[in-house]
Order: sequence, then C-alpha cells, then structure tokens
Amino acid sequence: MRRQECTLIAGLFLALRFTAHAAEIPEPPTTAASVLAQSTASDWRRPDPENLLCLDFDRGRVVMELDPRLAPRHVANVKALVREGYFNGIPIVRVQDNYVVQWGDPDAADPAKARPISRAQRQLPAELEFGLPEGVRFSPLPDGDLYAPEVGFLDGIPIARDPGSGLCWPIHSYGMLGAGRDDALDSGGGTELYVVNGQAPRHLDRNVTLFGRVIQGMELLSALPRGTAPMGFYATPAERIPIRSLRVAADLPEPERPRLEILRTDTATFRRWVEARRNRREPWFHRAAGKIDISNLPIPIRTPPP
Amino acid sequence: MRRQECTLIAGLFLALRFTAHAAEIPEPPTTAASVLAQSTASDWRRPDPENLLCLDFDRGRVVMELDPRLAPRHVANVKALVREGYFNGIPIVRVQDNYVVQWGDPDAADPAKARPISRAQRQLPAELEFGLPEGVRFSPLPDGDLYAPEVGFLDGIPIARDPGSGLCWPIHSYGMLGAGRDDALDSGGGTELYVVNGQAPRHLDRNVTLFGRVIQGMELLSALPRGTAPMGFYATPAERIPIRSLRVAADLPEPERPRLEILRTDTATFRRWVEARRNRREPWFHRAAGKIDISNLPIPIRTPPP
Repeated sequence: MRRQECTLIAGLFLALRFTAHAAEIPEPPTTAASVLAQSTASDWRRPDPENLLCLDFDRGRVVMELDPRLAPRHVANVKALVREGYFNGIPIVRVQDNYVVQWGDPDAADPAKARPISRAQRQLPAELEFGLPEGVRFSPLPDGDLYAPEVGFLDGIPIARDPGSGLCWPIHSYGMLGAGRDDALDSGGGTELYVVNGQAPRHLDRNVTLFGRVIQGMELLSALPRGTAPMGFYATPAERIPIRSLRVAADLPEPERPRLEILRTDTATFRRWVEARRNRREPWFHRAAGKIDISNLPIPIRTPPP
Repeated sequence: MRRQECTLIAGLFLALRFTAHAAEIPEPPTTAASVLAQSTASDWRRPDPENLLCLDFDRGRVVMELDPRLAPRHVANVKALVREGYFNGIPIVRVQDNYVVQWGDPDAADPAKARPISRAQRQLPAELEFGLPEGVRFSPLPDGDLYAPEVGFLDGIPIARDPGSGLCWPIHSYGMLGAGRDDALDSGGGTELYVVNGQAPRHLDRNVTLFGRVIQGMELLSALPRGTAPMGFYATPAERIPIRSLRVAADLPEPERPRLEILRTDTATFRRWVEARRNRREPWFHRAAGKIDISNLPIPIRTPPP
C-alpha cells in the first residue's frame, strides 16, 4: 500500500516535469483575466439598442439592458413610459444602503399632482416567473444555491430554475433592475424603478418584477448619498437627484449610443471564466474557494475592439 | 384513513378559531421589527470602548468594533498604530465598486517617504483561523452556506466553522474590516485597512486577516466616489479622502464616545429575529424565502434607551 503510493507520487512528479519541459516556459495559471484575454470575437455579443436604456444625470450615464423574456409586459410598458418622456426630470427618491436605489414620481399618490401618462399603463400584474424560450439550454452553476434548486445565466441575467416545473425567475443580484410596487402584486408596472445596490436581497425573488440589469455606470448609482428617512428615502425634496433623461438607445443618434459588448454566458469561454472565479489562481491567493455564488459573478463588459 | 384526516382537519379549524377567539384581536405576524420591539435590555450588549475605533473624516464618523478573538496580534497592532496616531491624516486611497474601501499610507512602499512607525509592527503573519473560546457555544444558521460547512455569529461577527477541526474563520460580509496585504501572507499587519462595501467576496475568506466590522456610519464609506484607476484606486492624489483621525473610543472623553447597543447574537430573541428574516411576514411579501444567507443578516444596532 505505502509503496504503491510512492510510485504514484513519483509518476506525478515526472508528469509535471515533462509538461513543464515540453512547454519550455511554464504556462501561467488560468485566471479570469487570462480567460478574457484569450476570448474571441464570438465570445461577446452586442446588446440590441432597442433593449438598452440610457439614464443620463449630472453624474454621468447609466446603461441598463432589458430582457423582454423575463417580463414582456413590463419591458414593453417601461419602454412606452420612456418614449413618452415620463421619466425625464423624475428624481431618484430613495437610496437605501446595501439594498436599493429607486426613482419615480414623488407625487404619484396624489391624482391632482401625479405626472400624467398618455399611452403607457400605470399598473400591471407582476411578472414573477417565465419559461425558457424554445431552444435555450440552461446550464446550472456547479455549486448550487442557498435559495433556489438551480441557478445560472440567461444572456448575463442571473436566473433560478425549478427543474420540476421548468419555470425560471430572475435573481436579485447587484445591479438588477426591477419595478417597485405597493403591497398588492398588481400595484407596480414600471413607473417606479429600482436597482439593487448591495448584498443580493434574495428574499425579494419572485416577490417583485425584475426585467433587466445595469451593464455600465453602476458606480454612479452606488456612490449616491444614502437617504436618511425610513427605508432610505431622501428626507427633503432638495436631496432628490433629478434624472435628466431616460431614453431607449435605439432612439439616440448612432454616435450617442453606448458602444458595448457583453461576455456571452452560454459558451465554453464563459464556463472557463466561472471556473477561474471559483478557483482563484492569481499569486495573491493562497487558498482557492472552490465555490462560487451566482451573485459574485459580475459579467464582463468591454468596449468593442476597433 | 380519509376519515381520520377529515377529523384532524376539523380539529385544526377549531383550534385556530379558538385561538383567534381567545386573543380577540388576531395577533400580528412576527416580523423582524416586532421581534426587536419585544426585546428586553438583556438582548442587547454595549461594546467595550477599548475595542471600538472611531474614524472621523469630513463626512462624519464611522464606528468599528474589533474582536481580538479573531486575530489577537492584529487587533493589538492596529490599536498600537492608532494610539501612536499613525492613521491621523492618512487618506482613503481605494474605493472599488462592489468590493472594498481601503485606507493606508500612499508612500508606504518608499522607505524615504513612508510614514514612520515607532512602537507598533509594520508587518505580521496573517491570522486566518481561530478556535472558539472556552465556554462559547456555536449555533449554526439553519440553512447552511455555499462556501463553508457551518456558519453563524460570534457576537455579531459572521463566522464559518469546520466541525471536524473545530477551527473558525471570519466571513467577508458587508462592513467587515480587514488588514490588506501584498502577495506574501505575512506582508500585512494593519497599516493598510479595508472594509467590504458590496456583495460578500467570500473568495477572500481565509486569504486575508479580518478582525472586526463597521457597526455605525457604513453609509458614509459606501457612498464614496469610486476610484477610476485599476482595482478602484483613486487616479490622482487630489481624489484621496483624508481621514482626520482614527481613535480608540476608550481614549475619547466620555461624552464623545459612541453610545451604541448591539443585538446579542446568542439569544432566543436573535434566533426569532433570524427566523423573521428567513420568512418575511410583512404584508408586502407574497412569498417567504424560507432561507437566509449569513451575509444578509445585518445585525441591529440602537442608541440605548434613556
């Protein structure tokens, strides 16, 4: 028994030495950065400008990608609201630390003062679950999840799936975009929007409609001063942060549209990137976790190479 | 079989009706807020001013509680550095979105310009694991963890435990305080400190020394502008945010010390509070998660009642 072990170990040493010799220069360990450096053009996708929202305010621009598959009626309604200029001049009214940033009409509850809506809906039933579109294969992450039976990505959106029913739902991770509501499930609809700005509040999953996520400029929302009134609302109107405009990228002149590419999440490159994040091999790390939580995989974005 | 089931169900209805009748007004559902409202003085503890750090800067005060049980040499060394005024005037040099805020001497690598240290150590071996002190009982959270075999709290500090070896380690959750280091495990020591400002970076667990956490004023650190240089460092010295002073609360005149109480995490009240966070019963929620991640339990703090 002992002897056999020794032989095996010697064999391993030889194999390692041979590999190192064959490559001449030892290969650097696979890191998330090296996976991205080796990616090819087909590992990246350009988001459809029809599904990109540009929020412009004093601090800069926040870009959000909508996914109609998660909540088709909400995406259509939010775009309708955006296109009738509903959000232009609407302020950020709430920044709760380690929870959410929220914007909406502060007078929405007062029929005399509420901002008018011409063609869009004011309210919609919540859209909490969806079926995977025909032909889309779901690849669960290898380490499971504390809250859901399976989790993975749908074009960069973190989602959970019940393998029994096949139903999926989006996950409340950092940067996810949703439609605020009151107590009733049909009291939202998209006039009040929120973005997760902290530890994934997974207890919100399937309680409120998510339909997209921030893909650029999140650091502008996350650095906003926190509100001091209950639930992080700004205590005075003067503290509210006006949004100059919220627009669909497709409606902007070509040069003003965001030029971005997002790492595809259905490729071998993505699986290698996840593996590099599960087991960090950068020299700083002395212990690899060997695990990854879905909310700890911020999907890479880049400006397309010329 | 069927019949017996019916009898049981009828019995349940009666029991429910009797309870409702006996209470006259139906009892409101147990929420995190109602658990705290029913807490008694003994559910709260006052932190030892000898283990509280007060970081004062232009935006206000951040209060951190140190726990020498996690990393005794680091806590002693950080307090020694604090007491020789090492951090007074030192700036916040790095704010990486959804990761860490960090402060330290920007000239530390240059022996000619590095801020001098008189009695404290510049470097210490990392302290990554610890044994539970005699008499401390560990109560794991009911839902487990993705990264560690068991997780729970030690006086408000989120920790993991290996039931085999009995060894524990602190968890990188929002607000946790650690000592930055270079690649070598003994290259830290407390001259450069960091606080987690986003989704729990659990891959750092047992790679770097944690020794306390922010208990008040976290929203001042989390709202700082993000650095634009690699790893979130501020690109220019002008962007750095000077710390006016970092002091041990015990060294402040009594009226200037923080007056705070922290919910004990070894009580029945705490277990009820965890249960109320696992299953939200506030009227807004239509679905209770039935699960909780350790990093989603921000331990309540209050100003002591008069």
